Amino acid sequence: MDKAYRLLNHGPTVLVSAAHGGVRNVMAAAWSCALDFKPPKVTVVLDKATRTRELVEASGVFVLQVPTAQQAALTHQLGNRSLHDDPEKLAHAGARLVDVRVADASVPLVEGCAAWLVCRVLPEPRNEQVYDLFIGEVIAAWADARVFSNGHWHFESAPPALRSLHYIAGGQFYAIGESIVVQNA
Amino acid sequence: MDKAYRLLNHGPTVLVSAAHGGVRNVMAAAWSCALDFKPPKVTVVLDKATRTRELVEASGVFVLQVPTAQQAALTHQLGNRSLHDDPEKLAHAGARLVDVRVADASVPLVEGCAAWLVCRVLPEPRNEQVYDLFIGEVIAAWADARVFSNGHWHFESAPPALRSLHYIAGGQFYAIGESIVVQNA
Repeated sequence: MDKAYRLLNHGPTVLVSAAHGGVRNVMAAAWSCALDFKPPKVTVVLDKATRTRELVEASGVFVLQVPTAQQAALTHQLGNRSLHDDPEKLAHAGARLVDVRVADASVPLVEGCAAWLVCRVLPEPRNEQVYDLFIGEVIAAWADARVFSNGHWHFESAPPALRSLHYIAGGQFYAIGESIVVQNA
Repeated sequence: MDKAYRLLNHGPTVLVSAAHGGVRNVMAAAWSCALDFKPPKVTVVLDKATRTRELVEASGVFVLQVPTAQQAALTHQLGNRSLHDDPEKLAHAGARLVDVRVADASVPLVEGCAAWLVCRVLPEPRNEQVYDLFIGEVIAAWADARVFSNGHWHFESAPPALRSLHYIAGGQFYAIGESIVVQNA
């Protein structure tokens, strides 16, 4: 948990999932960021039009997950279609969810991602209403040990299909690239 | 300005600069994010211990800039040293600043970056005190046309030295990598 912030530190596009009353949904979000180290906190922007936001507001819990290069099409579809318009959105996008229990909540994780952060909403009504900005405290986190271990990403030695995605617009992403190490000043 | 959010959309580490009363400073920040499209807004986390935060609070203006792969050592030094401890921090790091006037404010831009966003603080005292979280509205933005034009990054065709940086920890960054384009679903 001390290193959970590092899962988001390099600015990946994330998938946001949530569940309430038997409904589960996932959306994509480029506007998500680490906010604090300990306890780890995060921010994410959730537009009022999204079904996922309704589920987050109802349950008080959301999951941020870091999708991989091989999930680019999945990520784009989850970001472009709404559960409001397509009740079979998840099946059509090919998203497979696994429910896990964390602190009395059942939360849906998207299979195949590189990392998952389960977050409890820290209610900030003004941020949520004025800016669509939600703050969460990370209450559980996991990562795929092929690409994140000992508190560090290892994109340079892991399969390229596991690189994180960084969205621009119009279906264009960049995968994360080469490692650059600077000696301490 | 309609495309200013795209300068941050892929989650680069940024340099935050500010000036007040003849003092100028620059720090590095991995925790910065787009917040809105129009007008473009951003978030950035500024620790209370930083001199840059004091200058932002005094002037009400800050600049987010996107440093490049060839500025990795500069970025790390600006993030690791404080003006409180080293009055010659900028010179020691090799940072060169250019002052520009935007809406009655004189703001320092760091030379050699790939993009610059001048932001006016939208005061949110609770966020600033509780979370060290600042919200800014972008009032001017520029980019290096070699790597950003027509509202899109062109990392794949620009010199590799101009790629954006994505910080992890301990002096390790990743440069942004390959372009992945998904057809609209």
